Amino acid sequence: KINGDRLWDAIHEMAKIGPGVAGGNNRQTVTDADGEGRALFQTWCEAVGCSMGLDQMGNMFAEYPGTDPQALPVYVGSHLDTQPTGGRYDGVLGVLGGLEILRTMKDLGIRTKHPIVVTNWTNEEGTRFAPAMLSSGVFAGMHTQDWAYEREDAEGKTFGDELQRIGWRGEEEVGQRKMHAFFELHIEQGPILEAEGKDVGVVTHGQGLSWTQVTITGKDSHTGSTPMPMRKNAGLGMARVLEKVDEIAWSHKPDAVGAAGHIDIYPNSRNVIPGKAVFTVDFRSPQLEVIKDMEQRLREEGQKIADDMGLEIAFEKVGGFDPVKFDETCVAAVRNAAERLGYSHRDLVSGAGHDACWINRVAPTAMVMCPCVDGLSHNEAEEISKEWAVAGADVLMHAVLETAEI
Amino acid sequence: KINGDRLWDAIHEMAKIGPGVAGGNNRQTVTDADGEGRALFQTWCEAVGCSMGLDQMGNMFAEYPGTDPQALPVYVGSHLDTQPTGGRYDGVLGVLGGLEILRTMKDLGIRTKHPIVVTNWTNEEGTRFAPAMLSSGVFAGMHTQDWAYEREDAEGKTFGDELQRIGWRGEEEVGQRKMHAFFELHIEQGPILEAEGKDVGVVTHGQGLSWTQVTITGKDSHTGSTPMPMRKNAGLGMARVLEKVDEIAWSHKPDAVGAAGHIDIYPNSRNVIPGKAVFTVDFRSPQLEVIKDMEQRLREEGQKIADDMGLEIAFEKVGGFDPVKFDETCVAAVRNAAERLGYSHRDLVSGAGHDACWINRVAPTAMVMCPCVDGLSHNEAEEISKEWAVAGADVLMHAVLETAEI
Ligand SMILES: NC(=O)NCCC(=O)O
Ligand SMILES: NC(=O)NCCC(=O)O
Repeated sequence: KINGDRLWDAIHEMAKIGPGVAGGNNRQTVTDADGEGRALFQTWCEAVGCSMGLDQMGNMFAEYPGTDPQALPVYVGSHLDTQPTGGRYDGVLGVLGGLEILRTMKDLGIRTKHPIVVTNWTNEEGTRFAPAMLSSGVFAGMHTQDWAYEREDAEGKTFGDELQRIGWRGEEEVGQRKMHAFFELHIEQGPILEAEGKDVGVVTHGQGLSWTQVTITGKDSHTGSTPMPMRKNAGLGMARVLEKVDEIAWSHKPDAVGAAGHIDIYPNSRNVIPGKAVFTVDFRSPQLEVIKDMEQRLREEGQKIADDMGLEIAFEKVGGFDPVKFDETCVAAVRNAAERLGYSHRDLVSGAGHDACWINRVAPTAMVMCPCVDGLSHNEAEEISKEWAVAGADVLMHAVLETAEI
Repeated sequence: KINGDRLWDAIHEMAKIGPGVAGGNNRQTVTDADGEGRALFQTWCEAVGCSMGLDQMGNMFAEYPGTDPQALPVYVGSHLDTQPTGGRYDGVLGVLGGLEILRTMKDLGIRTKHPIVVTNWTNEEGTRFAPAMLSSGVFAGMHTQDWAYEREDAEGKTFGDELQRIGWRGEEEVGQRKMHAFFELHIEQGPILEAEGKDVGVVTHGQGLSWTQVTITGKDSHTGSTPMPMRKNAGLGMARVLEKVDEIAWSHKPDAVGAAGHIDIYPNSRNVIPGKAVFTVDFRSPQLEVIKDMEQRLREEGQKIADDMGLEIAFEKVGGFDPVKFDETCVAAVRNAAERLGYSHRDLVSGAGHDACWINRVAPTAMVMCPCVDGLSHNEAEEISKEWAVAGADVLMHAVLETAEI
């Protein structure tokens, strides 16, 4: 079993870097705080005797040697970046849970045939630079590195420049590593495990995602002296599209969700009718056809709304991945570990996207989930119990050790 | 008659300061660019032989002496600040139209009994610091100066500090000046004069305004893993309120307008359901009862929407003024001037708020309006013809000279 106190301490030590305003974290990707978090993680990995690899996307690979130099490593990890108002556990639990495996192995003198590599994937959250899971996506060959480097934040800074600036752009070619398997531990970010009183979620599938950035163009004009019939109010057009997004998601109940988290209005002045609204619609479903249907209806119904109001509307897909089915052998390793350790468990479909969703395309992959209070995540108040963290990390370790051939 | 070329040149010389991105201006109040614009105006005024007064709100008073030292001055002016994506004429025409009166008087050796004072009122637009017409409001005793100094911009900087920083916070007590009369020339910012082919608008009334800042609070959570029934989406609540604002304004057709120009969403991340939405609703009408009704319905219907969705909602009035009836003698002076000069004209209700609306409370006041292309304002593409500018400035001069007793 892992050392629960040590894992818990490490999580809260990491949370001191890039603190939020309400007890959580603001350690967004490739900021100075991200750099600090990486340095701390590297120090910890080196203390267990790992060598640290760093690729051109800033992905970190802490390698703990196996007994067979020919055997491909088993990878385990998640991400250290957070939302602007994020929690302490989202991503961090998976990286430090991986580190805790190595610390436990060192304590107990455990060796495996396959090396074990703990990873920190860069820009999982996708807040500062869309899309989410950017660097695991490049690793899995889903995006080119050049395209990833050109992603811009709201201030027009590029991902590539910022990665260079914080000093974490490595030399290693991205995606060249071959994996025996990949495991990721993550908090559920949803309410199911807590509601059913389960210790552990065995993730069999991940739902797919589609991000469509919508730009509505009207005409800036005076809120006082422009007669109602002459207005081209892009903000009002946006309001109608947002209502439609909600309606479309509910129409596929319970197999879909939809919302817009990002909204910008121009020129954003109290007495100017908005001439432009830019917002990103996030649709998800475990079924590919449902996602496709929602995307298409957004475009059709959005166009109709714009036409009726004399507005222009444009749609750009800025992120997405298809629903995922994880590797049956790896999933079984997780389920067996939970069973063996006596933790209550159930199969789950992940509601969020994870680096594991991309890595699953290039290596046998599975995920372990632990409950979180009220299913709340992407909120500084995100909370889990130490017991939940320990159960998840124990199951992770047993699945990894079995796969790495103890 | 005024010198049209000189007036036109001065307007376009001023437009070089704080240029916009699309041919207009971004010379927001108490920014460095505002300071530059003020300095240029002062230079021009001094060249005609004016002394310059500056009060503690940064209001500028360029005084051209009269023949009777006992006579109260006739004031004339508007504002030099612009919207973030504003036009070249909104406000500027009225200030430089006033300056052009003095230049013409000097050219022709005209003297009046009453002194003439050309003013530049600080922060008319209200974009950076709500409310609009802030400093004419303090002058007229509608707000205290302390309260005005504490107004904050989006970055938390205060009006008082910024006015000090740009070096335009004067010593003179605000509102101590007594006026014989006040005249303001302004572009219509609406479509009526152009549509009817009139040269000049004689402004008899101004419609009233109400700004309500609405804050909707839900719960930040994950867009993927939060089930639809568990969401508290403040952005969706806002969308429903925006739709209601439109409906309320239309219900008073044609006597009301309504929209929200300012919208901020938190934390504004693509994969976080908005936990907070802050936006400002702008309602206007020439009838006080209509404004009161719209305010009340916003609060009632907004509360209902929030309650139905499990959201919190709060309302704060951040600006407003009652409908205005201008002084009959001053209005007649404007109408007679237009008549005498042979310009076609009609009576108008101002759709926008103006410094004249506040000054009307402490001095006999009237306004002259000139058409603008497509009624478009608060847009960089705002446009007027030189002929329209000249007609407006001619009428302004004749009304001012008559009132100042030539
Ligand atoms: N786990 C997580 O929050 N990932 C970010 C990508 C997503 O929005 O699902
Ligand atoms: N004229 C003008 O645009 N004033 C700003 C105040 C308002 O919104 O009416």
